[in-house]
Amino acid sequence: MRLKCTIQYDGSNYAGYQIQPNAKTIQEEIESVLTRMHKGKMIRIHSSGRTDRGVHAIGQVFHFDTDLSFPTANWLKALNAQLPDDIQVIEVIEVEADFHARIDAKMKEYRYFVEQGDVPNIFKRHLVHFERDLLDMKKMEEACQWFMGTHDFTSFSSARSTVKGTKVRTLFDVRVERQANQFVFVLKGDGFLYNMVRIIVGVILDAGKGKVNEADVKEMFAAKNREFVGATLPPEGLFLWEVFYDENIKK
Amino acid sequence: MRLKCTIQYDGSNYAGYQIQPNAKTIQEEIESVLTRMHKGKMIRIHSSGRTDRGVHAIGQVFHFDTDLSFPTANWLKALNAQLPDDIQVIEVIEVEADFHARIDAKMKEYRYFVEQGDVPNIFKRHLVHFERDLLDMKKMEEACQWFMGTHDFTSFSSARSTVKGTKVRTLFDVRVERQANQFVFVLKGDGFLYNMVRIIVGVILDAGKGKVNEADVKEMFAAKNREFVGATLPPEGLFLWEVFYDENIKK
Repeated sequence: MRLKCTIQYDGSNYAGYQIQPNAKTIQEEIESVLTRMHKGKMIRIHSSGRTDRGVHAIGQVFHFDTDLSFPTANWLKALNAQLPDDIQVIEVIEVEADFHARIDAKMKEYRYFVEQGDVPNIFKRHLVHFERDLLDMKKMEEACQWFMGTHDFTSFSSARSTVKGTKVRTLFDVRVERQANQFVFVLKGDGFLYNMVRIIVGVILDAGKGKVNEADVKEMFAAKNREFVGATLPPEGLFLWEVFYDENIKK
Repeated sequence: MRLKCTIQYDGSNYAGYQIQPNAKTIQEEIESVLTRMHKGKMIRIHSSGRTDRGVHAIGQVFHFDTDLSFPTANWLKALNAQLPDDIQVIEVIEVEADFHARIDAKMKEYRYFVEQGDVPNIFKRHLVHFERDLLDMKKMEEACQWFMGTHDFTSFSSARSTVKGTKVRTLFDVRVERQANQFVFVLKGDGFLYNMVRIIVGVILDAGKGKVNEADVKEMFAAKNREFVGATLPPEGLFLWEVFYDENIKK
């Protein structure tokens, strides 16, 4: 049967989600637990997409196939008992045999956390991006609007992106929320290119500092060239928050 | 001149505050930075007291002597530029030549953070102690009162304690605050024995679970024996919050 798992992870101590040689990754940790549970039979998991080194997840999703038949509640306990304490399964459900965590994902939500102040909060150093410069909330709210809707995001994705074909994506929601000196950037879209969230939020922060305006961003879009846009923000503040699917995937 | 420094640290990656062979400690990190700043002349720092492996600080204090004479604001910047990102100096002031961070401390405040729920929050795993059992706020508020005032705390300190002389200490404040499913235990006293906060809060949690009552705790005090009291809570939730001095220490 096919199982869909929702997991959280603190990416601080990992080289990213996807398996790579000579580096500890989220995928590898999970597959090695599953393979052990299947008495050495290699189990491959298929996620909604990779996350980078140091990026976290509140609701990453993957699926895998198993011939073990115990209740999904037991799966959750068994996996959590064996996974390291920075990876946690929060849901396991049985799905239709043709469900695919990446292909069937309709929308993804990312959140990026920024804290503004004179001194960084050392206890959040792996979980927020720290900014000394003052940030104008109203300017950032305006800047969010510039990215809403359907655009070619070539300028706002890593030049190292390996995506073939179109770089047109649709953002359904781009907004910023404030709690005291913490800013949370919420982005929902039908797909995200490599580094896209970290580059867009960087531009919104620049807008909040008065460094870029709407005309600048229009030029950036038109250029279709990564070099026209500022730096990629660090991974610490980034969370894959939720992956959305149709309701009828459950078996 | 003598300088008093207030520091914060995330103790997660350290074997504790105090220098020990073959282990990374807070004191060692700071002394090695200071020694480098003094061109290799060994600089010893003197703290208000040690903290254990995995214990954090929001307001630990130490003093040291220096013959370098630059403004205290520059000291703060220079130290933070060289210290690792889990140790941070938040204040440097010049004090009288006879000030001593441990001997002159009038009172200390510790806080212990507990989160109650079905699943641990992996992002706080180094910063709070997680409890699955329900905790009765009213019972815990009552239990706090049992520890207020002057007592012989022998039963509530590690049997490995190396303190010579009296184990009588005075607690000026013992209370619990609640924010959603997080409980914060605040303890202020003229001194704390080894593991004393983690043992006392453990008993208060047991009271909150209905496992111990006031008569039990009176027996524990009377026994003057560590074995009459439950387990020591783990270090993750513990913060040395503030060390209090007289106002007239400044030069």
